Amino acid sequence: MAQNDLLIRAARREATERTPVWMMRQAGRFLPEYRAVRAQHSFLEMCYTPELAAEVTLQPVDLIGVDAAIIFSDILVVFPGMGLDLEFQSGKGPVIGNPVRSAADVAKLGVADPIESTGYVMETHRLLRRELEGRVPLIGFAGAPFTLASYAIEGGSSKEFQRCKAFMWNEPEAWAALMMKFTQTVTAYLCAQIDAGAQVLQLFDSWVGAVAPRDYERSVLPYTKQVLDEVKAYGDAKVEGGVPLIHFANGATSMLDLVQRAGGDVIGLDWRLDMAHAVEQIDPRFAIQGNIDPTALFASEEVIDAKVGEILTAVGTRPGHIFNLGHGISKDTDPARAKHFIASVKEQSARIRGGAQQ
Amino acid sequence: MAQNDLLIRAARREATERTPVWMMRQAGRFLPEYRAVRAQHSFLEMCYTPELAAEVTLQPVDLIGVDAAIIFSDILVVFPGMGLDLEFQSGKGPVIGNPVRSAADVAKLGVADPIESTGYVMETHRLLRRELEGRVPLIGFAGAPFTLASYAIEGGSSKEFQRCKAFMWNEPEAWAALMMKFTQTVTAYLCAQIDAGAQVLQLFDSWVGAVAPRDYERSVLPYTKQVLDEVKAYGDAKVEGGVPLIHFANGATSMLDLVQRAGGDVIGLDWRLDMAHAVEQIDPRFAIQGNIDPTALFASEEVIDAKVGEILTAVGTRPGHIFNLGHGISKDTDPARAKHFIASVKEQSARIRGGAQQ
Repeated sequence: MAQNDLLIRAARREATERTPVWMMRQAGRFLPEYRAVRAQHSFLEMCYTPELAAEVTLQPVDLIGVDAAIIFSDILVVFPGMGLDLEFQSGKGPVIGNPVRSAADVAKLGVADPIESTGYVMETHRLLRRELEGRVPLIGFAGAPFTLASYAIEGGSSKEFQRCKAFMWNEPEAWAALMMKFTQTVTAYLCAQIDAGAQVLQLFDSWVGAVAPRDYERSVLPYTKQVLDEVKAYGDAKVEGGVPLIHFANGATSMLDLVQRAGGDVIGLDWRLDMAHAVEQIDPRFAIQGNIDPTALFASEEVIDAKVGEILTAVGTRPGHIFNLGHGISKDTDPARAKHFIASVKEQSARIRGGAQQ
Repeated sequence: MAQNDLLIRAARREATERTPVWMMRQAGRFLPEYRAVRAQHSFLEMCYTPELAAEVTLQPVDLIGVDAAIIFSDILVVFPGMGLDLEFQSGKGPVIGNPVRSAADVAKLGVADPIESTGYVMETHRLLRRELEGRVPLIGFAGAPFTLASYAIEGGSSKEFQRCKAFMWNEPEAWAALMMKFTQTVTAYLCAQIDAGAQVLQLFDSWVGAVAPRDYERSVLPYTKQVLDEVKAYGDAKVEGGVPLIHFANGATSMLDLVQRAGGDVIGLDWRLDMAHAVEQIDPRFAIQGNIDPTALFASEEVIDAKVGEILTAVGTRPGHIFNLGHGISKDTDPARAKHFIASVKEQSARIRGGAQQ
């Protein structure tokens, strides 16, 4: 099979014959084939075992026809290497046994060595690059400092982030020290993924939409920017043409000016902003990823086609568009609809961009 | 005590000597005095009993010093009059016993008569107007058609609104019929509140932030606009100077162009948009309500003061600002911090607007 490097070229804002497409959380519960593996292993066991992680990473490539593989893992796997106890409790999600509640707690944390603490992630990358044989590019990823800090402080998932924000506001020095430890950990972790073969990297700031713009600017942006700048420089030095970075700040479509200042090569969008407005707001030096409502995959095929068409039309022939859902695919999605969605993007975008469908 | 009509004047974009301030969900669980009443009665019993509803409505006026009373009630009280079974289960929130899942279900629903089905809300208004004696204005409210439809279809609260959106996309005629029933119900309900003495009305579109802009434009906006237009005309005919309408579309700060097209006199903002940008984006014919992060009340008094100051400075002397949280006050908020926040808005805004603090 010919090498499909559409995603890398789109991320670099090179002309592509059609729009590449993948889905956040594509290696996940909506696939019966994933659930079959998951039934035999715990979630963390799957993350920690390269063969299992690689197996489910490949499923959507083989079954759904996406244009990229994103490594199966979790943003929180960097925690144990920093001294944060991590477990996943069924029905509750991640639980941090020793949450960060004081400057003393911050002082106890270390910067994780990516090889020592997450060598299995690097091994999964190497395994996948061999197994993919260039069929599609491999995306590595990490959580952004704010999102990681929110889990560390709240001790797990949160709705209002009261402890996290109170810490940010009331203990600015301890907050800065904590954010810097995450910044260094995440930077090293992403650079190690480049060494291990990641061809594109996505930084997930999954919860940053809870932060008001001025707080983001003061207490979050400098750290996100440092991660993106340093990883960018590392990729430029290591890989011909560099390693494109996708910056997905979920829920942050009303502060895209700041998200762009934080950087990245590709700005990832949730579905709350119309693509026509996004194209106006996002500087042409960035590629754009997004942004269909993931729930649209519960609509009829005709509705899916229409929604895909609206987004593609809004982007037009602007170079640098990666199609994606505006959020992770829902576990209740019918795989046939997901497959239809992928095919619809390929077919319609080929018509607009004048290329072959592949 | 002198009449405090700051909120009404600000909503009409008249000059005020300082910025009026109130808090969404101010009659609620953060107050020990509220919890004392609630301990004796179920939530719906409190809604259904004018004396109890009036008692907790007045608490934040007396205890915290807000510039408006908002009637204690729930957006879902219109459901029984339409034929939707409503109960509140502890720990689970609202549960609709007969959710809407088909065109046939929609056909069974009626338009609620506001006097017959929610006469107790009107009685609460009359009671409060007498008890308030003009100390502060009385705000009535209703849920917007989309938010009500989401509860009716999902059967309760939801995170992803899969059933609701699938219904909207896959059954457009039944969706239109359902939205029209909510439109007529809500319009009559708000007009009846005007008759009963409401001096300002707020329309809560609490969940509309889950809807992509093009879906909002096609399938939501026309109904919201009809409610706002018709209630506006009714208020203009009934009350000297009209009854100001606050339109709060939660989570919709990246589609404010459409929210403004739907109408209202005051655009309510959550905290995800910087006020400096809001002032640029919102047409001068609208007043603005908002928009401090409600979690900021967990910060120190100094931080609260600084955040209040930033928002007031961004608004400057533009006429028509009502200060509020960007979302309902958290139940865990210390009442002393809430009180400090209110005092801070009063004091700082009087300095900017050149008036007396009152």
